[in-house]
This record gives sequence, structure tokens and C-alpha cells, in this order.
Amino acid sequence: MMLSEIDLERVQRRLDALWGIGKTDDGGVTRLAYSDEETDAIEYICSELDDGFEIRTDHLGNVFATRDPDADRSLFLGSHLDSVYNGGRLDGALGVVVALEAIETAYAEGDPQIPPTLVIFRGEESSRFGQWAVGSRGALGQLTVEDLSATDQSNVPLWQAMQSQGLTPENFSEPTIDMDRIAGFLETHIEQGRVLDEADERLGIVSSIRGPVRHRVSVEGDYDHSGATPMGLRRDAIAGGAEMVTAIESTATAAAEDGDLVATVGEFAPDGGAINKVCGEVTFSVDIRSNDESYRDEIEDRLLDRVRTIADERGLDASTTPVDRSPPVELDPGMRERLIDVVAPMDVPFREMPSGGGHDAMNVQHAGIPTGMVFVPSVDGISHSPKEETSAEAIREVTAVFTRTILDGPPE
Amino acid sequence: MMLSEIDLERVQRRLDALWGIGKTDDGGVTRLAYSDEETDAIEYICSELDDGFEIRTDHLGNVFATRDPDADRSLFLGSHLDSVYNGGRLDGALGVVVALEAIETAYAEGDPQIPPTLVIFRGEESSRFGQWAVGSRGALGQLTVEDLSATDQSNVPLWQAMQSQGLTPENFSEPTIDMDRIAGFLETHIEQGRVLDEADERLGIVSSIRGPVRHRVSVEGDYDHSGATPMGLRRDAIAGGAEMVTAIESTATAAAEDGDLVATVGEFAPDGGAINKVCGEVTFSVDIRSNDESYRDEIEDRLLDRVRTIADERGLDASTTPVDRSPPVELDPGMRERLIDVVAPMDVPFREMPSGGGHDAMNVQHAGIPTGMVFVPSVDGISHSPKEETSAEAIREVTAVFTRTILDGPPE
Repeated sequence: MMLSEIDLERVQRRLDALWGIGKTDDGGVTRLAYSDEETDAIEYICSELDDGFEIRTDHLGNVFATRDPDADRSLFLGSHLDSVYNGGRLDGALGVVVALEAIETAYAEGDPQIPPTLVIFRGEESSRFGQWAVGSRGALGQLTVEDLSATDQSNVPLWQAMQSQGLTPENFSEPTIDMDRIAGFLETHIEQGRVLDEADERLGIVSSIRGPVRHRVSVEGDYDHSGATPMGLRRDAIAGGAEMVTAIESTATAAAEDGDLVATVGEFAPDGGAINKVCGEVTFSVDIRSNDESYRDEIEDRLLDRVRTIADERGLDASTTPVDRSPPVELDPGMRERLIDVVAPMDVPFREMPSGGGHDAMNVQHAGIPTGMVFVPSVDGISHSPKEETSAEAIREVTAVFTRTILDGPPE
Repeated sequence: MMLSEIDLERVQRRLDALWGIGKTDDGGVTRLAYSDEETDAIEYICSELDDGFEIRTDHLGNVFATRDPDADRSLFLGSHLDSVYNGGRLDGALGVVVALEAIETAYAEGDPQIPPTLVIFRGEESSRFGQWAVGSRGALGQLTVEDLSATDQSNVPLWQAMQSQGLTPENFSEPTIDMDRIAGFLETHIEQGRVLDEADERLGIVSSIRGPVRHRVSVEGDYDHSGATPMGLRRDAIAGGAEMVTAIESTATAAAEDGDLVATVGEFAPDGGAINKVCGEVTFSVDIRSNDESYRDEIEDRLLDRVRTIADERGLDASTTPVDRSPPVELDPGMRERLIDVVAPMDVPFREMPSGGGHDAMNVQHAGIPTGMVFVPSVDGISHSPKEETSAEAIREVTAVFTRTILDGPPE
């Protein structure tokens, strides 16, 4: 199969059409989970499918479209169409459009070894309800009543938003897909990081998805007059918190030499800070991720120890509240190998790499389905932004990889 | 003069009455600059003056009350009656009530060497208009049209707030007090710091008032995905800002060994921080104070150098915006000596100390009037809070010091 057989203009036309649904003034998109815009985007993609496809929508709004609904086994490919507030036009949408293009090209080129199914998972982004990957978790039977009761900024519960889109969320603890029928799942996504862009590589075969453990740290000292309180008599929560942040960063940077690890303080919020006050209270977040759970937990202990030691040395009170703890997921080794076998002869610079963010693919693999994921570069590492971009070459190449994999079939 | 001759019950009754004007639910007071509450508080104090006093109110609302309006010279004593939002009951009010008690006791005890004048300066706190010490600056002819145009949260300009209190702010660049007539100024205030409380001392003779220099520092890096961006590829504004805060604190702590110095980061505000993002922009404040201007400016240079160096090392952009620069003020050496001569035989633990905060006294001294200031302890260093407190002993002692100084007269 030649790369030129992929219809890149069709891909761009579809991406542009999706971009038009929920487009924002500065060129981003807002297509929130279970919004009218997300429904419109799904209807648009369905309208692009020729009569050969049978389209099934489950009670959570996930879409499964295939030309061969009666096949014993099927290779699933897809992603999501919802976005964050003022997000980029590629996040999710690229994965759906590339999957469709690969399926169409594969049928045009030959006879898929195992019939493919286009998948559109709903509600992957957590921006609206604070609930992540609602569609894929629901399709796998992993949602709870509590998840469905989460509300958005207008106090609309998730289940009601689903109903407003004509859906009837019921029996949500049962999978909506026949697990035995799925031969595998493939998803492509923009990287949402700087690794490929900095290295001038065009494809990233995802080896694993880093599992986050998150805490909020609350530091308490004393509020004091900034001019009247000698340095030695202070219990300064901002200064103490800053030392903790510095220690977290340096400890994590050292730990990243010996294993897969990133740690981030992304929020730092003094309570009642003022230019002329020593601040008495600060809360900050810590997000620690690795594809190696035991290494991550070891570094977590080390970081929280550093926080406590610094608090003790300064006479501050520090308390930590766990926010989240998800295991890393290793993607199917056979599927990774198959993807590498396809990419290797293509003369495209690529690497194997962990995914920093969670994706629907993580849930699918976690449910035991052999899953592969391929990243294309985020230009300048930018994502969740109107400035999100990738190159046409990378889009063409990942489409070729998926087409070839459909034609050859997933590993046994 | 015996301490017992001071009517401490009258002092407490007056403080309680003032507390009732603008009292908040949790026991603080809100008597903002040029509010009805501030006017009511002034009227209350005037109602406590016997017929012997002549009361003059200037066009900015400052009150001057004396029994001897025709004297060539007068020793001024007083403070302010406005407060911050939900401030303490002693800040300012104590200085007015103690001044009045000292004047009354002095007349009861004998014949003041130079007739005293009770002074109530309006609008000392900057909370409402962002303009500090409006009354004392105005009385000294230091206000500008720009100052008077400052607005509060409801967009009411200062000049309009003055008019709403029946005042007619005009010719505000001319002093409203006859500078040649003032033999000196005395003010007492709670310390607003921890020095006296920690040392178990009851009076602080203020040697000087630290002048602040303030900057806002803006740090720019890149926004990135917290899970997807390796430690080495980050330009993390929170981590960079935190290292700067830590460096500012340690440099200032070292500098405080060699001279009078405090430096504080009291605000630290990430822009668009989130638990799952590397943050790309942070702004923080730096407040640097000393009673030695050249030392302060030397340390200022050192701190801003450290900030720039850390930014360079991390590939961050840092820019600093000056916010404020006021000179320190040394209080009159003769007046300090006189106060020490009065305190020394009283067997009260005291010290000479710089003031960290600005006070009306600073402006009065700056205008060339020999000024003395005495602090009483802030229990646990707390001020600008409903929890503000000091001991009855300290109130009695500072009243005695002022009474004695009225009777003996200020230095020539």
C-alpha cells in the first residue's frame, strides 16, 4: 500500500467540518461531553458513512459502525468527538477521522483480515462533569450511579444531560459491547506533550499509559505583618510551600533519571495573600505519574516525606489529601509489536513512548482487550488549546499504519 | 505621677463604645475610611470631650481638640479611627483613646508644660481606596488630585466619599495645621508584629519606620500536559517562581543578620493553574523593608538579581514591575530620648525598635515635626483581625508615658 492512496483532502475536509461544530472566536472548539455540539459532530461523521455501514448507538451514546455486523470478530478503531472548553480541533476528532479513513482505504485496497468497526466514544473529557471517559467506561460496564450523578457548572447531572441528547442511560453497569467479539482496539491521538516535536519524530507507538497519583497539600503557618515581623519569627506558608515545590521538582527530576517519572505542582493557591502580609495558608496540588506503579509509589513516599520534613523544619503544619490513584496500564505487547512491524519499513522517524495522559484506549486495554495507540506530534507540545496542531505527513502516516494493520489483521 | 491615677475603666469604656461602631459578627470592626461609621466614631470621641475643649475639624475631616487654642505652641497626640475590613478594635482607636486619657490625666495632675492637642486623623487605612493615610497627608498638604480621584469597590471616588460625610475637600495641597505651632507629635499603636509579645516586653519605643520597596514579578514559561511532558522539557512557571521565592527568603534571612531587613512574598498567583497542567505563568509580589534605605536598596538589587538568574537558568522570562518605593523615616532622636527617660524609671520591660508598618506618625515626622511613637504588644502578633489584643498593663503604661511627657513637655 502506498501512502498516496490515502485521501488526505477528505481527511482535512472532515476535520474542518468537525472544527465548524462548536468553533470558538479564537479558532478553538467547545464541544462538551453530552452537549448538542457533540451530538451534531457524531451525526456529521455518521452522515459521511456510505450505505454499506451498519450504525449502532448504545444507550450511553457511543457509536459503533461496521460493514460486517455479523462477523465473529472485529477490530475496533476510533476515539472521541467531545472537547474541553475552547480546546483544539484535533484532540479526539483526529482519532475518529483517521480511523474512518483507514477503514475506507482498507476496503478500497483489499479485504480486511478481520472486519473493522469505527468507534466513537462519548464524553471522554472531564471538563464539563469532572467525570473522565464516560462513554468508554460505560461501554465496558464500569460506570456507577455516583458517576452519573456528577453535575456540570449549571448543576445539570450527567444522566440528565444524556437524556437531553435522546439517550436512556440504564443498566449502565453492563457492557454495551460484546467483549468476546473484539479482536483489538486502535486509537490515534495527538501526543499532548513535547517529546515527538522536540525530537523531530513523527509517530509515537504508545508502550503504556502512565497512571497518576494525586494529592492536595495544605500548609498552615501564621498570618503576619510583612513589615513588622522579623524573618526569624515567621511561619510563612508561601515560603514553606515554595520550598516544598522546589524539593518536589528536584526530587522528581533526579528520579526521572532512574525510571519513568514525572511530578508536577500545577496549582498553588495562597489563602488571603496580600502584598503586605506574611501568608498563613497555602494549598497546592501534586500529580505524580509513571508507567511503573511500584516506582511511582516509591517516589510518592519520597516526595511526601520531603514535604513533611520541610514543614517540621519550619514549624508549619502540612496535611495531604489523596485526590486520585489510578494504575498505569501497559498496552498489549503483541499489538505494539504489530504496529512497530508496520512502521519500521516506512522510513518514518518514530519511537516507543509512554502516554502521559489518559485515553479511552487505557480503559479498553484495562478491560483486557489488546489495544494499540499511536501518537502524532503536538506542535510545540500544545494541546487543549486553539493552537493545537500536527503535520499533514503525520496524519497520512498514521492512517497508513492503521490501514495496513486492518488489512493484515491484529495479532492472534 | 502614679499609674493608678489613670482611669483604665474609662479607657476600656471608650474602647468598647468605639468597638460597637461598625462591629462585625465575629467581633471585629469595619469602619472604613470616610464611611458613616468613621464619622460616628469621631462624633463619639468628640462627645466625650468636656466643654473646656475647642474642637476644630479641617476640610478633610481631621479633628483637632485642645483646651488652649490660642497657645503659641502645642504638643499633638493622637491616631486614627478608621479600620480595615473586619479589623481589630485597637488599631488606631487605642491611639486616640490613650491620647485623650493622657491629656485628661495631665490636666487633672497638673499644668502641661506645653498645651496638648488631641488629633484624630481620618482615613489612615488603604483598604477602601488604596490610598494610605489620607487625613495626615492632607493635613500636611501632601495630597494630589490623583489621590482624591481614587475609587472604592463601588466606584465611589475618594472626594465624593468625603463630600458624603459633609466635607468640602478644597485647596488640599495646603497644610491645614500651622506647622510652626506644633511642638511635636505622639502616637501609640499596637505593634502589628510579634517582637514585643515573643520577648515578653510591654512597650516599644519606635526608632524608625521601615520604608517599603515593592515589586510584582511576572514569570512566563510554557503550559504543558503534566503527564506527557518529561521533567527536562518543561518551562514550569510555578516551579521557577517557587525557586525564586525560596531564594528571596534565604537571601533576606541572611541579610537580616547584617542589617535591618525583612522581605516577603505575600502573593503568589498562577494564571490558569490546574492539577494536570504544567503552569506557564505566575505573578508574585515582593515587599522589602528596612530602616536603612541604602542597605534596603542593596538587598533589593541582590534579590532581583537572584530572580533574573533563576529565570535565565530555567529558560523562563521574568519581568519586574515596581509598585511602591517609600523612604524609611527616622523618628526624632530628641523625642525618642525623652520617651526613654520617662519609661526607664518605670520598671517596665521595653525596647527601642523599628516599626514595620507605616503610620500617620511617619508622615508627621517626614514633614519635620519632632515625632515619637510607642508600641504596645500585639498578642500573638495578630493585627488587622478580630483577634487583635493587647494587655491592660501596656495600655496603662503607655498612657502614663504620654501623661508624663505632656507634663514635662517635649524636648526643645
